[in-house]
Amino acid sequence: MPNYLLIIILSGLLLAKSYAQQLISTTSPNQSISLVIRNTSEGTISYQLSYKGKAVIEPASLGFVLSKPQVALSRFTLIAADSSTVDENWQPVWGEISQIRNQHKELVLTLQDKSASNIRLRVRFRVFNDGLGFRYEFPQQPALTHFIVADELTQFVLAADHQTFWMPGDYDSNEYLYNTTKLSDIDAVAAADREKDTALKSVIGPDAVQTPILFKTDNGLYISIYEAALVNYPVMHLRVDKQKRTLTAQLVPDAVGNKAYLQTPAQTPWRTVIVSDQATDLLASKLILNLNEPSKIGDASWIKPQKFIGMWWEMHIGKATWEKAGGKHGANTRNVMKYIDFAAKYGFDGVLVEGWNVGWEDWFGNWKEDVFDFVTPYPDYNLDSLTSYARQRGVRIIMHHETSGSVTNYERRMDAAYQFMVKKGINTVKTGYVGRIIPRGEHHDGQWMINHYQRVAEKTAEYKLMLDSHESAHPTGLHRTYPNWMASEAARGSEFNNAPTLGIPPEHTTILPFTRLLGGPMDFTPGLFRFRLNQFDSTRTQRVRTTLAKQLALYVTLYSPLQMVADLPENYEKHLDAFQFIRDVPVDWDDTKVIAAEPGDYVLIARKAKGSSSWFAGAITDENSRDLSLSLSFLDSGNTYEATIYRDAANTDWQTNPETYLIEKKTVTAKTTLPLHLAKGGGCAIQFVKR
Amino acid sequence: MPNYLLIIILSGLLLAKSYAQQLISTTSPNQSISLVIRNTSEGTISYQLSYKGKAVIEPASLGFVLSKPQVALSRFTLIAADSSTVDENWQPVWGEISQIRNQHKELVLTLQDKSASNIRLRVRFRVFNDGLGFRYEFPQQPALTHFIVADELTQFVLAADHQTFWMPGDYDSNEYLYNTTKLSDIDAVAAADREKDTALKSVIGPDAVQTPILFKTDNGLYISIYEAALVNYPVMHLRVDKQKRTLTAQLVPDAVGNKAYLQTPAQTPWRTVIVSDQATDLLASKLILNLNEPSKIGDASWIKPQKFIGMWWEMHIGKATWEKAGGKHGANTRNVMKYIDFAAKYGFDGVLVEGWNVGWEDWFGNWKEDVFDFVTPYPDYNLDSLTSYARQRGVRIIMHHETSGSVTNYERRMDAAYQFMVKKGINTVKTGYVGRIIPRGEHHDGQWMINHYQRVAEKTAEYKLMLDSHESAHPTGLHRTYPNWMASEAARGSEFNNAPTLGIPPEHTTILPFTRLLGGPMDFTPGLFRFRLNQFDSTRTQRVRTTLAKQLALYVTLYSPLQMVADLPENYEKHLDAFQFIRDVPVDWDDTKVIAAEPGDYVLIARKAKGSSSWFAGAITDENSRDLSLSLSFLDSGNTYEATIYRDAANTDWQTNPETYLIEKKTVTAKTTLPLHLAKGGGCAIQFVKR
Repeated sequence: MPNYLLIIILSGLLLAKSYAQQLISTTSPNQSISLVIRNTSEGTISYQLSYKGKAVIEPASLGFVLSKPQVALSRFTLIAADSSTVDENWQPVWGEISQIRNQHKELVLTLQDKSASNIRLRVRFRVFNDGLGFRYEFPQQPALTHFIVADELTQFVLAADHQTFWMPGDYDSNEYLYNTTKLSDIDAVAAADREKDTALKSVIGPDAVQTPILFKTDNGLYISIYEAALVNYPVMHLRVDKQKRTLTAQLVPDAVGNKAYLQTPAQTPWRTVIVSDQATDLLASKLILNLNEPSKIGDASWIKPQKFIGMWWEMHIGKATWEKAGGKHGANTRNVMKYIDFAAKYGFDGVLVEGWNVGWEDWFGNWKEDVFDFVTPYPDYNLDSLTSYARQRGVRIIMHHETSGSVTNYERRMDAAYQFMVKKGINTVKTGYVGRIIPRGEHHDGQWMINHYQRVAEKTAEYKLMLDSHESAHPTGLHRTYPNWMASEAARGSEFNNAPTLGIPPEHTTILPFTRLLGGPMDFTPGLFRFRLNQFDSTRTQRVRTTLAKQLALYVTLYSPLQMVADLPENYEKHLDAFQFIRDVPVDWDDTKVIAAEPGDYVLIARKAKGSSSWFAGAITDENSRDLSLSLSFLDSGNTYEATIYRDAANTDWQTNPETYLIEKKTVTAKTTLPLHLAKGGGCAIQFVKR
Repeated sequence: MPNYLLIIILSGLLLAKSYAQQLISTTSPNQSISLVIRNTSEGTISYQLSYKGKAVIEPASLGFVLSKPQVALSRFTLIAADSSTVDENWQPVWGEISQIRNQHKELVLTLQDKSASNIRLRVRFRVFNDGLGFRYEFPQQPALTHFIVADELTQFVLAADHQTFWMPGDYDSNEYLYNTTKLSDIDAVAAADREKDTALKSVIGPDAVQTPILFKTDNGLYISIYEAALVNYPVMHLRVDKQKRTLTAQLVPDAVGNKAYLQTPAQTPWRTVIVSDQATDLLASKLILNLNEPSKIGDASWIKPQKFIGMWWEMHIGKATWEKAGGKHGANTRNVMKYIDFAAKYGFDGVLVEGWNVGWEDWFGNWKEDVFDFVTPYPDYNLDSLTSYARQRGVRIIMHHETSGSVTNYERRMDAAYQFMVKKGINTVKTGYVGRIIPRGEHHDGQWMINHYQRVAEKTAEYKLMLDSHESAHPTGLHRTYPNWMASEAARGSEFNNAPTLGIPPEHTTILPFTRLLGGPMDFTPGLFRFRLNQFDSTRTQRVRTTLAKQLALYVTLYSPLQMVADLPENYEKHLDAFQFIRDVPVDWDDTKVIAAEPGDYVLIARKAKGSSSWFAGAITDENSRDLSLSLSFLDSGNTYEATIYRDAANTDWQTNPETYLIEKKTVTAKTTLPLHLAKGGGCAIQFVKR
């Protein structure tokens, strides 16, 4: 392509050429969001974002440093600007709603490096009504084939010292609590030091935070900065310059300090800014999904959302152990039969069994390469008889592959392990990455591991297996592309209720939907019914910070197509009336209404069951009691519904009286408005059935 | 075990307790070698080795630094000393001789760390008539389970400033020329800088050299320092302290700088010192093999030594290319058929085909992870028809797996690749590791790769495949344990004859048997018949530094059960009389006699063909012409033999007249002594057939 300057002005694009810079601007389809690009005479490129006239991102620069070839890509000649418009609908295989609208304007800048490198790249911007996505694209070109990213220079410049919901930047763990401070008060090292329950930390520094990060502005905006379609690239953390209110991409390095190895044509993940003046809109945003590629799985009929129980919590609370040595092995045939019986009796699809395979006597913390082989059950676990026993009862065993972070070992054995599953009739696998990664020097969030997670998604899809990954990197909407990758953990989940120090404070589940869940479903494992955890070990003082009604509501507020029913059968059998909600609540939906929400305070969501006229609602609150109001206008008008309400009692309190709940039935219509009282740390779950 | 001091004095052990230290000594079975161990009151442990009263290793210390647990293991309490004697014979699956004697005395020291660690370890010494092997063993114990080696402190202290045959220490390449200098003149960086033809260098420093390293002393000893049974541990290079004449182990680090991750019970490779006052004894030593474990392959009947031709050299010299793009693809069906015809006509077992699989357009130097898949032929290479064509002619295709150093990719695909081979009826694979290793930060010589090479040996054995590894770490006798791992490159092989600068000087092949070949067979690829390499590219000025007769002799002097017949069919067909020797020479032997040898000067070896009365002899020299004398006393007395002698002519000279040779027949007996004239850079090859 000749080196000429061509600025194409198309409909929806405004181009102004001033003394010092060129300006290109566009807006979202509904005009609420405005994007302005500046190319200065020195060559810097910046983007600026506003929402209904309010500053979201002040002019923020773009660029890269490459280590091969050694060149800084930060000063550009603008070669071309092209725009287009998209408005389409698509249907997810499963999800919160049955049809998703993808409506945006696209602006593509073609840039040429002003240094002698001759490198060209594109920046593709997509402006949605609820935010912005942009990515870098490196086309095939003589000047660039294989290249190594030393640093990405993408910046996000905030307009003020916003209230910020943040987590310490860490290359290996995203299982932190969220901190809520002014941007200028971020101290990630201090926050990480407070967390005693995270086994593996690779904290980046006092100024580094993870994405997604959420801001609430004094002038009423909610802003989320994140990424979408994280493929063949490391996770983007952010470095905070408090004085300049500037966040700069901090990519996760590999074993030798490089960030990404790419070959043209190549592209980065999308960098995203979701913004609204309504907190509820943020939760309803489909921007991340819309920036991902459509499903690569042709026939997806084998992918089934499911609820499952787990041979899992009893290990956490000391009733049993993963390892066989010691005489308390949980995954023994007789015990698993009980779980299968329970699942069959109450209508759950699966039974997750952890600790089934040899190796648990020597796996944790040793950075050992050859640990598990994923195909050898302990001798007291008769897998063949159990799969047969389960099959007869309409239940499936769910496989567990704990890699202990030894991913080279897992990759060697993946094919054999998945063939083993297929042979045994097992079609869902939970993977785990507890421990330092092997290849040594690699991180959970680095490019190599990101590629690994994708390989697992692709390979399980080949074998028609559903996937639930734990200790994996934050999800970025790839469940659209690989709908068999149904959930991941990738945040602090319910297991931390058993952690000795901070545990899961009541507010945690009101922040997750504004942060981690924007990227995809989480296997949070809700549904605990017993909150003192000294049931089998009287020395345990840690507890679950919740009311029982809140545990029910989490099945609605924390969307996932895979939901564990986390507590022990014997604990559920003491509260079968409340348990009924868990039996009834679906894991796939036709529609979702975010009724009310405020990060760190409360969430109230209503969802319509897939292929059914029934609705479900869930409301949760933080450590404060709260009264919310639920207008049922989403119900079909002209019909009456029976509402079964699982709620905190007047004297319920997560600290003093957590297990007290009331179950009420009411007849309601679309005109009804239900007052909801949530206890401290409490919640409310409701089922609406058309009469 | 209680912490008591027990010194057991057993037959063959002498223990003296003096003021400052304890002494333990033993000797080799024939008394020629004496080993003295000292444990000083401060706790240091040293060993000292002498040969017929001459100092070989002066008191040299032992020990470790661990990084997990953080402890220096350098001061010990001697808990026990046990000794035993072994004298046994064993039969290799293939080799230079049909029966090997393992005769040694063993001394095992049990040591306890004098610091607070409570760690115990053993040092196991084996004293052979031709040298010493010792290794460290870490038994299972409460004080030590998983541990990380930060440094091994093993030293070798030389008695004088010997003449040294050495190669620069390098974590990724062993394809250097040998340097011959005084120990005090070693400058590894300068030597490495002279080497322009090695694509990937990770030079350790000016004072670091590789093993095996050879010393020739002024008082007539030949000393080799090396290692045996390199398993689950990195390669040992050596740091040279010239003033103290001390060599200290320099283990190859992993991506994060650690050396080895071990779990008790664990053991290091054997550290070996081979010594003799006869250079020929060094070449005949079986010490390295004796220190390796017996074969793990039960039925080894499928393992067959073989000669093969290669679709290979024509790519090196510019007739064809590995890659299909460009229109000169060597591995096309028609061309490979010609090779198969040639192999069938002249009686060779296999045809190595490189460049057969897609990916060669983009593989070299890019540190790219997904390059080859090892199962997809180029469209112009009809593998099925070729394997069938070959089978009909009694020839086998030899598979080529170039990994480009992307070992994670290879490990993912190994099973599929080997299954593919089995399906196609291919039973030998040449692997390659050209390029920087992935996992990035790992080295060819690090523990992770050592484990990889072993995995390949084990997995190919599972599939009954023979293995020939290139760009792998130096071999340490593991072909005893995995006799399907028949050869490796792991040194500068014949392909460097095509390198533009230093190439292969005539002396190189006279040093290899004293160094690299002590560890195992090398796929050197001898047999070049045309020495000007401008055959297809007139600009090439590089040349092969040899005479034709020397190329024949290499089949005898460089032992390997896999020998390539390296030149092009058309070049052989011009010299079919000389080619007859290559057709006749075996690759498996009943007996071997090293008649005369001097490192860097000449080698003369005679070998008896496996299961036959025929003998073969090979003599080679360096850049000097030389007259050697070959007493045929090894022939059966009372029989006459026809000797066919392939020799340099009087006017042959590697520089001026390399392709001139004479073929003579003589009738000889065991009483005959043949005078051998070797031209400059020349050689002589002889076949003896009983009449």
